[in-house]
Amino acid sequence: MPHSTATPIRMSPCAANTLNPIRKLVDHLVIKPNPDKEFLRLSIGDPSIFGNFNPPPELINAVAEQLQTSCYGYAPAHGLVNAREAIADYYTTDASPVTFNDVFITSGCSDALRICIDAVGSSERNILLPCPGFSVYQTICGNRGVESRFYNLDPDKDWEIDLDHMRSQLDENTAAILVTNPSNPCGSAFTKQHMLDILKVAEEYGVPIIADEIYHKMVFNGESHSFGELSRNVPIISCGGLAKRWLVPGWRVGWIIVHDRHQQLSEVRTGITRLCQVIIGSNTLIQAAIPQILATVPQSFYSETLTKLNFAANLLYTELCEVPELKPCMPQGAMYMMVKLQLDELFDIETDMEFVEKLISEQSVFLLPANIFGMDGWVRIVLTVPDDILRDACNRIATFCQEHSTKRCTEKKKAIEEL
Amino acid sequence: MPHSTATPIRMSPCAANTLNPIRKLVDHLVIKPNPDKEFLRLSIGDPSIFGNFNPPPELINAVAEQLQTSCYGYAPAHGLVNAREAIADYYTTDASPVTFNDVFITSGCSDALRICIDAVGSSERNILLPCPGFSVYQTICGNRGVESRFYNLDPDKDWEIDLDHMRSQLDENTAAILVTNPSNPCGSAFTKQHMLDILKVAEEYGVPIIADEIYHKMVFNGESHSFGELSRNVPIISCGGLAKRWLVPGWRVGWIIVHDRHQQLSEVRTGITRLCQVIIGSNTLIQAAIPQILATVPQSFYSETLTKLNFAANLLYTELCEVPELKPCMPQGAMYMMVKLQLDELFDIETDMEFVEKLISEQSVFLLPANIFGMDGWVRIVLTVPDDILRDACNRIATFCQEHSTKRCTEKKKAIEEL
Repeated sequence: MPHSTATPIRMSPCAANTLNPIRKLVDHLVIKPNPDKEFLRLSIGDPSIFGNFNPPPELINAVAEQLQTSCYGYAPAHGLVNAREAIADYYTTDASPVTFNDVFITSGCSDALRICIDAVGSSERNILLPCPGFSVYQTICGNRGVESRFYNLDPDKDWEIDLDHMRSQLDENTAAILVTNPSNPCGSAFTKQHMLDILKVAEEYGVPIIADEIYHKMVFNGESHSFGELSRNVPIISCGGLAKRWLVPGWRVGWIIVHDRHQQLSEVRTGITRLCQVIIGSNTLIQAAIPQILATVPQSFYSETLTKLNFAANLLYTELCEVPELKPCMPQGAMYMMVKLQLDELFDIETDMEFVEKLISEQSVFLLPANIFGMDGWVRIVLTVPDDILRDACNRIATFCQEHSTKRCTEKKKAIEEL
Repeated sequence: MPHSTATPIRMSPCAANTLNPIRKLVDHLVIKPNPDKEFLRLSIGDPSIFGNFNPPPELINAVAEQLQTSCYGYAPAHGLVNAREAIADYYTTDASPVTFNDVFITSGCSDALRICIDAVGSSERNILLPCPGFSVYQTICGNRGVESRFYNLDPDKDWEIDLDHMRSQLDENTAAILVTNPSNPCGSAFTKQHMLDILKVAEEYGVPIIADEIYHKMVFNGESHSFGELSRNVPIISCGGLAKRWLVPGWRVGWIIVHDRHQQLSEVRTGITRLCQVIIGSNTLIQAAIPQILATVPQSFYSETLTKLNFAANLLYTELCEVPELKPCMPQGAMYMMVKLQLDELFDIETDMEFVEKLISEQSVFLLPANIFGMDGWVRIVLTVPDDILRDACNRIATFCQEHSTKRCTEKKKAIEEL
């Protein structure tokens, strides 16, 4: 049946349900910054923005060397064998050996997460997601029609999972529990005991864990554990990549690591392999450099990164503790700090979104409103910012809060009246 | 409801329906080549395999220069603006200007195709695909639950589309017609008139065209046209990338170009933008090099590639015309030749799969059976092979056919009996 020609063509339901709140906010922000003040973006988790967090020279050299060889062709869809071997070695511990057969290379960690969710999720099933949590999980679930269900993290307990609440969300249609550790946006890092407690719940319900471990080993003090290393009976599908620890988020090299001691994931592995074949993985130039990158980047590079992040966290925490209208949460890892807004004490600001918009237009400081992570009344600040800019931003945030403070405004009015 | 722990976990229906017949064949081939003969792979469309088709030095230099700058961070999810501008300029013609707003950069052309199909397709709709056609289209449709419907190409008319057959497949649920030109696997390149005839059918039914133009401008003799350039009233969503013309298939840089003279695709553009935000596009190192690549690679590079491909096509055609059991189709573009097997004349071979398997085990030559492109009784041979290897392969194929020839075998038997 012929149609008329100028009819608009509709997007698919899948596209209509694919919503990325961060990109929507960042790409379509209409609020103009104050033209008299330099615009400070403390919003996006991209460590390359300010030039103070550069990838290690060993990584650049490894890619430069590969560029002179002939790694132009296709790799196997789930990655070059020697790159998968190097990643397997990197993650192997005595308690949990990993082989190249457990590793699948993807186009960034988001692609890894997408493939994992697509491999187990469907429109009849649900996946448990952290709240607050990185928004791309919901974007992926929406794209595939999987129900997103949320379990709460407790800011008063270093963002540990409320396990009773998690249990209440689990049912026979739960395909997986997604856990982020260390966490974006919280900057938290779970204790070993808490991770064992999470595993106990997953085991009880026979549900695999999809572990977003892109910030693996990025913990300021104390040990860093992965779910694959700690799990005895729960199948773990872990996602990682070069983005954060090696500081090249734009290069889109991620990976999936399957930990499956009791061969429960044989079919899911087949599914992951098939899903990798749709877009044929990640750039082979960078893939080919992975063995050399993992072999040559010195431990000092990683520890210097953590030292700088920890310094920024302390600076930010100390400065913002001085602001009565804010309640910062000290991060333990990753690259972020969550800050609670005491909205009752701000006379003309009712939401985190309003706080963020007014802060941009008055002080030219851009923070992310945590409602996009599912947490109303908070903001997320990135730590990958040079100290002087961070101090400047803190001063501006303090001024802003003072100018909008109910109490301090009342006091000021009173003082003026008394004069 | 707690489950027991060692239960196998099922893959999702989406993963179960994601099948890539090429990867399945190539990754899981069990037939062993003849150990006495070097294994010649004329199967995969990867020009980098034999070292005779290398990317231009200007491309390598452009990436090397970017590696020394600081393009480590995230790009906008649909690509760096200056790369999109350079691609827009490259595709702009007087008749059909393209701006950066029309360009979306993706993780390879397969990702571009996936995003296009996801943007318009759904489980209630169908997409028309060429038969024979590149198998990833069906993989993507299966992944999304879109019905794949096939229209025939006519090998006796240089693989032109049988437009009556195409019309018979179109209905009110057709979301798009996918057209490949120049074609993998056929090696065909449509005339301008045939492209205008295809556009007429699409216009008649009000259906957009998804044009797989990854082999754009790779035509041996005569003009090369794109659908975006020729269309007046049909919205075109064109997919391309660096893989084939610039000979870096493993680098996974593709793009979508939207041609939409009557603003019918406004909603679909939004859909494409959203879908790009799931995995956040392609490697920024290569993206950042695109303006320099497109500006500096000389015309002579492109024409030398075509001269070499054309020489290989002629060599292959001449040699295989001498084999009575084969009927090669002379290619006009891309990197492939389709060859019809005269199966009636081969006494112990009944299918293209059997031909391919026996050819591997006896002569160590690997061709792709065209049944994986939907065309039984044909094989596909790649043209990106050095002349000496191509001659060797032709000799082995000729010997193989002679040894399996009904007629020649009977003649031989007869001759022996007459002695």
